[in-house]
Amino acid sequence: MLVVMNANATPAQIEAVSARIRELKYTPHVIPGPTRTAIGITGNKGAEGRDSLRLMPGVEDVIRVTSPYKLVSRETHQQLTEFPIAQTRIGPGGCTLMAGPCSVENEEMILRCAELFMSRGVKLLRGGAFKPRTSPYAFQGLGDEGLRLLEKTRQKTGIGIVTEVLDVLDVERIEAVADVLQVGTRNMQNYALLRRLSQARKPVLLKRGMAATLEEWLMAAEYIAAGGNRRIILCERGVRTFSDHTRNTLDLSIIPVAKHYTHLPVIADPSHGTGKAQFVPSMARAALAAGADGLLIEVHPEPARAISDGAQSLDFEAFEKMLAELRPIADAMQVELR
Amino acid sequence: MLVVMNANATPAQIEAVSARIRELKYTPHVIPGPTRTAIGITGNKGAEGRDSLRLMPGVEDVIRVTSPYKLVSRETHQQLTEFPIAQTRIGPGGCTLMAGPCSVENEEMILRCAELFMSRGVKLLRGGAFKPRTSPYAFQGLGDEGLRLLEKTRQKTGIGIVTEVLDVLDVERIEAVADVLQVGTRNMQNYALLRRLSQARKPVLLKRGMAATLEEWLMAAEYIAAGGNRRIILCERGVRTFSDHTRNTLDLSIIPVAKHYTHLPVIADPSHGTGKAQFVPSMARAALAAGADGLLIEVHPEPARAISDGAQSLDFEAFEKMLAELRPIADAMQVELR
Amino acid sequence: MLVVMNANATPAQIEAVSARIRELKYTPHVIPGPTRTAIGITGNKGAEGRDSLRLMPGVEDVIRVTSPYKLVSRETHQQLTEFPIAQTRIGPGGCTLMAGPCSVENEEMILRCAELFMSRGVKLLRGGAFKPRTSPYAFQGLGDEGLRLLEKTRQKTGIGIVTEVLDVLDVERIEAVADVLQVGTRNMQNYALLRRLSQARKPVLLKRGMAATLEEWLMAAEYIAAGGNRRIILCERGVRTFSDHTRNTLDLSIIPVAKHYTHLPVIADPSHGTGKAQFVPSMARAALAAGADGLLIEVHPEPARAISDGAQSLDFEAFEKMLAELRPIADAMQVELR
Amino acid sequence: MLVVMNANATPAQIEAVSARIRELKYTPHVIPGPTRTAIGITGNKGAEGRDSLRLMPGVEDVIRVTSPYKLVSRETHQQLTEFPIAQTRIGPGGCTLMAGPCSVENEEMILRCAELFMSRGVKLLRGGAFKPRTSPYAFQGLGDEGLRLLEKTRQKTGIGIVTEVLDVLDVERIEAVADVLQVGTRNMQNYALLRRLSQARKPVLLKRGMAATLEEWLMAAEYIAAGGNRRIILCERGVRTFSDHTRNTLDLSIIPVAKHYTHLPVIADPSHGTGKAQFVPSMARAALAAGADGLLIEVHPEPARAISDGAQSLDFEAFEKMLAELRPIADAMQVELR
Repeated sequence: MLVVMNANATPAQIEAVSARIRELKYTPHVIPGPTRTAIGITGNKGAEGRDSLRLMPGVEDVIRVTSPYKLVSRETHQQLTEFPIAQTRIGPGGCTLMAGPCSVENEEMILRCAELFMSRGVKLLRGGAFKPRTSPYAFQGLGDEGLRLLEKTRQKTGIGIVTEVLDVLDVERIEAVADVLQVGTRNMQNYALLRRLSQARKPVLLKRGMAATLEEWLMAAEYIAAGGNRRIILCERGVRTFSDHTRNTLDLSIIPVAKHYTHLPVIADPSHGTGKAQFVPSMARAALAAGADGLLIEVHPEPARAISDGAQSLDFEAFEKMLAELRPIADAMQVELR
Repeated sequence: MLVVMNANATPAQIEAVSARIRELKYTPHVIPGPTRTAIGITGNKGAEGRDSLRLMPGVEDVIRVTSPYKLVSRETHQQLTEFPIAQTRIGPGGCTLMAGPCSVENEEMILRCAELFMSRGVKLLRGGAFKPRTSPYAFQGLGDEGLRLLEKTRQKTGIGIVTEVLDVLDVERIEAVADVLQVGTRNMQNYALLRRLSQARKPVLLKRGMAATLEEWLMAAEYIAAGGNRRIILCERGVRTFSDHTRNTLDLSIIPVAKHYTHLPVIADPSHGTGKAQFVPSMARAALAAGADGLLIEVHPEPARAISDGAQSLDFEAFEKMLAELRPIADAMQVELR
Repeated sequence: MLVVMNANATPAQIEAVSARIRELKYTPHVIPGPTRTAIGITGNKGAEGRDSLRLMPGVEDVIRVTSPYKLVSRETHQQLTEFPIAQTRIGPGGCTLMAGPCSVENEEMILRCAELFMSRGVKLLRGGAFKPRTSPYAFQGLGDEGLRLLEKTRQKTGIGIVTEVLDVLDVERIEAVADVLQVGTRNMQNYALLRRLSQARKPVLLKRGMAATLEEWLMAAEYIAAGGNRRIILCERGVRTFSDHTRNTLDLSIIPVAKHYTHLPVIADPSHGTGKAQFVPSMARAALAAGADGLLIEVHPEPARAISDGAQSLDFEAFEKMLAELRPIADAMQVELR
Repeated sequence: MLVVMNANATPAQIEAVSARIRELKYTPHVIPGPTRTAIGITGNKGAEGRDSLRLMPGVEDVIRVTSPYKLVSRETHQQLTEFPIAQTRIGPGGCTLMAGPCSVENEEMILRCAELFMSRGVKLLRGGAFKPRTSPYAFQGLGDEGLRLLEKTRQKTGIGIVTEVLDVLDVERIEAVADVLQVGTRNMQNYALLRRLSQARKPVLLKRGMAATLEEWLMAAEYIAAGGNRRIILCERGVRTFSDHTRNTLDLSIIPVAKHYTHLPVIADPSHGTGKAQFVPSMARAALAAGADGLLIEVHPEPARAISDGAQSLDFEAFEKMLAELRPIADAMQVELR
């Protein structure tokens, strides 16, 4: 940490801050300057004591220098994480596709999706059984019946299942069926859920919170890693800004930046990112070209009749067209579309 | 709802949309215009079918007209909500003060706070036993031991207890002690928790999410109300913007606007709103002058030694000074500081 | 400045950075730490050389410590700025009111406003002759004819004139009439205009840019001060965020924070801040209670017939009601409403 | 437009609104609904009268339906705009590269850039002679001497010149040299400048404002088009959000969306978009894959010695590596890199 003193700080104030740093069992290093003095601190492991220093007379600011995440940091673990999921894998060298409807509506539609995807080499099916809805009066998903349909689909087609968890009480039942447990944007900092998932037997797909910084996102991943679950996939899905031409602002620059700071795979969800089906393929291509390790795409046999999020779902024809556009980009990026 | 057609929409497209509206059991009203046609829809109760219309050929946009919340809306319930809490009450005619440390650290500090507050007419103590922390390695609160200390403090001083709930599994133990159950900003859309709290025996203080619109906030309240718990307090605590001179951007304009749309009481938390103790009194005064029904203030006997959020906590002297500044503003506003 | 090295930086990289700092004629102070090394820099006057250091191998970040504004800073000039404007003044001890229509529409309306205001002790009239409009097809103001009407109104009533400048070519004509030259939010970083105004004979009212940080705002003021014009009024008018219940998000916390860092007066514009007349009085009261040195309020004799911004204009009755509500708050704050 | 009435609006209020609409010479269409009434308006050409309706008793909201831009809209002009610039062109079928330093520092560096670019098929050189700088004390560009160096470089190498205009008084001198006149993000709504450029003899590159919506950006372009200059290039360069891992948030989704609404070419500036050279190539690839019609890239022979913006400038080696990565993406997109 670095303590920055006011331009008018007195020698006594500087000494008091140094004394407090020593009391905290750290070492102060006074750096005098032409307009103000700074005090470097060594020996501290995190940000503990930061507030107490900030409140002392003569202190202008206290700046943290060390990153607060460890297990997910690339500084402590340089090699990129890679792990298998159902019949595919995620990590360097590939772009792993996950596709499917917002919610499982009935057996026939989910099976039609799974069959199409497997025939096209897409080996992970996304579909919600438990849905977070802004309105208490909206369709909340089929629940356990939805899980049963996902299980049946997996058995029939061999496709892997990605589905959302909303409640700590549901984790056990969902992980019996799912290959990946999804944490939605609204729950990125639901620490009770993160802690429960740190004990789960399945990988976790952690969506970025609507207003989360990169550091907060990595700290949420650290919660899961700290409990012992190191199979974590980060997913950018758009953030909340003033920009109103899309449903959210898909912040693709976080893909290369996150990959610089963490060894975890980072994927993108252009469906929520744009909220409009017609713009999904452009942003899927862009995410791939930015280095995404995977793509999460909403697909529905009949978007115009979807119970939820139809406006951002591709129909089968549009999905196949998008796949055809992604292939040459994947070749250009020298990654395998899988 | 209103369907807006493209400038180039054909008569066949307009008829197809009208047919689809009739199929949804609503009534279409075609409104031809010089550059484009709009189609008004009557008979629909919510936004069901909106996506399906938006995807039809020739459709530019579908605009929702009716507000999606009912129970918390002032349109359906004009009278402002008022209810008692411990030895005080919240609602029109007053500004209800809630003060205390970020987290319960030990018996002595929490008791000192409670005694000071009761002697100054502040009848609600805030203090966290379970804390949501960005880092898994940071202090997470004293947990059940913290609850025990809050209970003891209440018995000794008669002060009411406001404390945060993070996990559905904790609700029963916390509501045995607390007078108000606080939902933090990160959990505003944790629907599992909201649904559980809709069954709670105690009022709920619902903080606005860091990136929540007014409508999303009221919909979160609607979740609680829909389950039967009508005692809800809304709390503005600052939102996430580009602005970096404060920890969050305290969006005080939401106080009069929310009070226009809902009958629920709306309070402000200038401590999280600014993140800096020296600016809390100014924003507390501003919130009161904007019409806040209450204030949530972080106070700590020794902020420089607080385990968490010391930088935004007032010490006792600053708290008393702030109270002295609030009183004439309350008089000017003709409300009782309670 | 402080250079933060990567956790894996080599001794050779650290030495190379130190050498570069010496080459820039500054002094490096190496601060070794358990996980990474930092290098304090003294002797530098601004941020020059920051980029060149950031690009060196092994460097994680370069943090600036000294504030970049000088003349407007309270560190170099502790006493609060105060100056007269027409028949009133701005600065400590008062809240200076400026009111009037968005644009000057005709002689009768502007005169009616001025007469009402002077009779109520409001001595500054705002009104645009040149208007920045989002659409090239919208009414752009009466221009020089508007200036003539403002001049006439001033002569008849003695009221001071606050009016906007859009173009360097207009400054001379406008300053012949105006008592305060207003720079709108869209022009906060129009440096050609700021430089011209630094030579103006009249005070400048500098609105905060829609996405400007406090530092950028103060730097824009520094442009004006650097050219010799020290009579600057800062005006918060709402910023652009995701929040959609008001036209802009009025960021009142910047009032106490700006007043901490600069000696210049800081006022608020709740009319643009909310965009809705019914919420203006609440936010005017809040701004006053937050410590605003003045208020800029849109008032129109007949808002429903205003050519521009009618939705946020108070009519005379609402304006007088607001004044009556402000008086006791001003008394509570011990400032004079003037 | 559509007027939405309150749920409690009376028949008299509905009739009063209808009467006012007729008075404005438009036609009202009352659409009764189960909870509220809407009134469609036909015959209006813009948003005139919107405020006056919004203020009437019983009115909840007034929704605009028609887009406010005409000349730049794809609804009125379906064919994509294409035009030549120096030895290259911009428009469908290609991705036009513009590269160079933030500012012209001396003859040698600008010439070295131009020679490298021309040898690699990059035919447009960007470089500032007049620079908008946040601080009045920072280097403001070489000014007319910079223009002279750009002119000389063009004569020697044949490269086209893209350079920024800050002041209406400079336009004539700059357009004598430049092939494209750049309007920076801070001046996107500097209407005096836009109006002057609408008369310019050269194409205009209009950067998106830091907090501008798509509609505001297109309206700014409409200002230029309305004055007669139809050669406009839109440039996304990142917006201001809470996200802090990059200097700005590069909002790539605006590329496909803008191209849906306007016929003008849309390019991206990943250098300002990220602010960090190491992440520029990823985002350049992403922008190309999203459909950008061009890329604006900061390149400097020695970024570590650049006077301004060195941290986001590529050196020659990194630039050539980026070009090599872009080529296969361009092939995949079936566009020519030019």
